[in-house]
Amino acid sequence: MAAIWGRHSRRSVAGRSTSEGGPAVSEAVRIGLLGRGTVGAAFFELVGERADAVEAATGRRPEVAGVLRRSEGDFDEILAGSDVVVELIGGTDPAREYVLRALRDGKHVVSANKQLIAQHGDELFEAARDAGVQFRFEAAVAGVIPVIRVIQESLAATEVSKVFGIVNGTTNFILTEMAKTGASYSDALGRAQELGYAEADPSDDVGGADAAAKMAILARLAFHTPVSLDDVTFEGIENVQPDDLAYAKEFGLSLKLLGVAERHAGGISVRVFPCFLYRGHPLAPVEGPFNAVMVEAPSITEITMSGPGAGGIETASAVLGDVVSIVAGRSPVHAVRERLEVVRDVDSAFYLHLEVADRPGVLAGITAVLGENEVSVKSVVQWGLGDDARLVMVMHEGAERRFEAALEAIATLDFLRSPPRAIRVIEEEFV
Amino acid sequence: MAAIWGRHSRRSVAGRSTSEGGPAVSEAVRIGLLGRGTVGAAFFELVGERADAVEAATGRRPEVAGVLRRSEGDFDEILAGSDVVVELIGGTDPAREYVLRALRDGKHVVSANKQLIAQHGDELFEAARDAGVQFRFEAAVAGVIPVIRVIQESLAATEVSKVFGIVNGTTNFILTEMAKTGASYSDALGRAQELGYAEADPSDDVGGADAAAKMAILARLAFHTPVSLDDVTFEGIENVQPDDLAYAKEFGLSLKLLGVAERHAGGISVRVFPCFLYRGHPLAPVEGPFNAVMVEAPSITEITMSGPGAGGIETASAVLGDVVSIVAGRSPVHAVRERLEVVRDVDSAFYLHLEVADRPGVLAGITAVLGENEVSVKSVVQWGLGDDARLVMVMHEGAERRFEAALEAIATLDFLRSPPRAIRVIEEEFV
Repeated sequence: MAAIWGRHSRRSVAGRSTSEGGPAVSEAVRIGLLGRGTVGAAFFELVGERADAVEAATGRRPEVAGVLRRSEGDFDEILAGSDVVVELIGGTDPAREYVLRALRDGKHVVSANKQLIAQHGDELFEAARDAGVQFRFEAAVAGVIPVIRVIQESLAATEVSKVFGIVNGTTNFILTEMAKTGASYSDALGRAQELGYAEADPSDDVGGADAAAKMAILARLAFHTPVSLDDVTFEGIENVQPDDLAYAKEFGLSLKLLGVAERHAGGISVRVFPCFLYRGHPLAPVEGPFNAVMVEAPSITEITMSGPGAGGIETASAVLGDVVSIVAGRSPVHAVRERLEVVRDVDSAFYLHLEVADRPGVLAGITAVLGENEVSVKSVVQWGLGDDARLVMVMHEGAERRFEAALEAIATLDFLRSPPRAIRVIEEEFV
Repeated sequence: MAAIWGRHSRRSVAGRSTSEGGPAVSEAVRIGLLGRGTVGAAFFELVGERADAVEAATGRRPEVAGVLRRSEGDFDEILAGSDVVVELIGGTDPAREYVLRALRDGKHVVSANKQLIAQHGDELFEAARDAGVQFRFEAAVAGVIPVIRVIQESLAATEVSKVFGIVNGTTNFILTEMAKTGASYSDALGRAQELGYAEADPSDDVGGADAAAKMAILARLAFHTPVSLDDVTFEGIENVQPDDLAYAKEFGLSLKLLGVAERHAGGISVRVFPCFLYRGHPLAPVEGPFNAVMVEAPSITEITMSGPGAGGIETASAVLGDVVSIVAGRSPVHAVRERLEVVRDVDSAFYLHLEVADRPGVLAGITAVLGENEVSVKSVVQWGLGDDARLVMVMHEGAERRFEAALEAIATLDFLRSPPRAIRVIEEEFV
C-alpha cells in the first residue's frame, strides 16, 4: 500500500508567511468564493468578522479576492487571483469543472458540496493528490459537526467498524414534529417548509438522497475504499404514518432517518432508512433539525458527535475551519492571544434542600430571606414528616454571592433541623 | 498579535518520507515511550497492531524504539534514538523534566498527562514553539473524545463562548450508581473501585481536582489565554446525599459533576461543581464512566461530543491519533487503501404494524409465517378495534431477506385489512 498523505503537500499556503520575527505585515490569503447564496453570503461576512482570529491562528489574514455569481464574475480571473478556492455553488455542474480546474491549477479547495463529492469523489481526490494540494469539505456532511476531521485525522489509523447517525436535519425535524404533535407527514412537511427547514421541492431530503450522498462520503473516508452514491441503498420517510409513531411509543421507541455504514465479513454496507431507536440510545434524544453521528471501532468503543445540521452561519463556520486548516498547514501549538481575567462571581441557579419544623410561617420566613437577597424561586415542593417537613426548592439564575448570602442567613433560622444543602442547576429546560 | 502556528514547524517528521514514486521502503518513525502502565502497555500493543494503517496514512511505519520504566531504560539513550517522545508516566515529576528536555532537543512530544499540562502549560508550549516541534495531548482530556483537536483546529478562528461537560468518568459512574440504586456515596464509590473505575485513593477524582486540571486545559485552548490549575474553582461530589438525587427527580433533574469554562464581560470563569440537569439536556443522558463535552459559540450554536472517558485501549488510541497527526504533518487527502465489497443483505430488527380481522387464529397464522422464515419475535401488542384488531410487533435481529420473505407471505394472508408496514429497529436497549 503506497503512502500518500505524507508527500502530497508540495504547495503550502502557510509557508509563505512573512511574519517571522517582530511585528510583521502578513501576506493575505486570497480566497476565491464561488457562489453567494445563503452559505456564501454568511461565509463572506464571517471572513470579515474573524479575519483577526484567522491571522492570530495562522499568521496570515484572509480576504475574499473575488466572488463568482451566476450573473457576475469571471471564473478564470478569480482562479488566477486566489490562493484558496471555496466552492459553495452546490450541484455537480458547473461545480465539478470549477473544482477540478482549481485543483489542477494548484489551488487548495474547500467545498460544502455533498453531491459533488459523493458522485465524483475519485476524480477529485486524484486531482488533489496529483497537484499536491488540500481538498477539504467538512461542511458537506452534518453541518458544524467536525466528523470529517475526526474520521480523517483523529481516527486515521483506527479500524472503524461502523459510522452511523442522523445526517439530514429536514427529515429529523419532520419526524420530531410528527411524534410530538401527532401531525401527518404532509402537515409536518408544511411546517418544516414554513420554518425554512425544508425546501419548496423537498424530494432530495425526504426521499433519502441527501443523506445517501453524505453516507457515501463518510463510508469512503472511514473505510478507505471507493464509495459512490450508487453504492448506497436508500429509503425516505414519505410513507411514515403518525400511527406508527404513536404505537411505537408503547415500546419506548422513537423514529429517526438513519444513515448506516458498516463493515461486514464480506465488505461494507451503506444504507439510509427510517429506523426506531429505544429510549437511552445516544441518538434517541437528537431532535428537530439537529444532526448526530456515531463512530464505532474496537479501540475507541464509540464517539458520538451532535450539533446543528445546517444553517448559513453554522455551515460557513465549518467552511472557515477548513480554510484555517489549509492556511495553518501544520499542527497548532497553543499560543496566548489574550490575557483574560478569571472571574469568580458568576450567575447560577440552585437547588436547595431544607429540613424544617412543620409549623406556620416557615415557608414565609425562608422566602423572605431569599427575597431580601434578590434570589428568585422557580419551584417548591414540600413533604410533611410528622413534626418536621422537607422543603426542596429550585431557584432561578442569579449572582452566586447573593444566593450564598441568603444561604448563610437561612442556616441561622431557628426552625431549621439540619444544615441546608445547595447544588447548582442548569436552568435551561429542553423539551 | 504575532502569528504563531504558521511558522513553528521547522522540524517535520513527514518531510523525511522516502516514499515518493514507486514502491518505497519507508523510513520508520521511532517512538520513545516513557512509562509502561495500563495505557503505556496498551499503546505499545496498538502500535504493533496498527503499524500498517499508520504507514498507509502517513507513509512511515511506527516502531517503539525504546521504553523507559521505573526500573529499566535510560532517558538520554531513548531520547537520542527517537523521533517522537510519548509521555505516559503521569504526575509532574519527572514527567515535566523529560518532556521539556525532549521538546528542547527538537523532538515532537505526545502526552496524556493532564496535571503536567494544567500546571506547567506555559513553559511546555513555549518550549515547543521555540523548538518548532509539535506538542499534542488529546488523551489528556476526555479520553477518546477528540475535543482538543476540535477546539484547536476546527474552531481555531471561532470565538468560543463556553466549553463545558462531564470530564471525569469516576464521578459520573458514582453519581449514576447512586441515582439508579439509591446507594450512598460511599457504597457507590466502593462499587466503582471494585469495577476499576475508581482508584484505591480516589481523592483527585471525587474531590474535583482531576476535572479541574482538564478544564484548565480546555479553557486555555478555547480562549487562547493562560489558564493554570490555580485559576480553577472546584468542588467534588463527596457530600452528595442519595436523598438529593431522589428529591430532584421530582423536578426531572439528574446530577452530574460539571466542568464549566465560560466567557464573561470581564473575563472568563473556570469551575467544577456538582450540578443538576433537566431531562432533555444533551448531557443528561451521559451515564456511567462516559464523558461528554459541549462547545458553544455564536457561529456554531453548539457541538456536543461524547464517548468513553478512560480505559487503556481508548486512551492509547487517542495517543496514537496524535502520533499519526505528527507524522502526517499535513492535511490528509483521501486515498484508497482497500476495495471493499458493498454488501446489501444485512441483519436488521424490525417493527411490524398489521391491521387484521379480530378472530381466532390470526396471531397464530402470522407467527407461523414468521417462524417458517426464521424471524424471531421480541414483543407483541394487540389492540381490539371492533371487528378489527391492530397488531404491533418488534422482531429480533435477523437477515433482512428472511424478514422480507415473511412480509411478502404475510401480505397475502386473507385476514389482513391493509398492507403491512415495516420499519427497522435498532435492537440495542440502553437502560
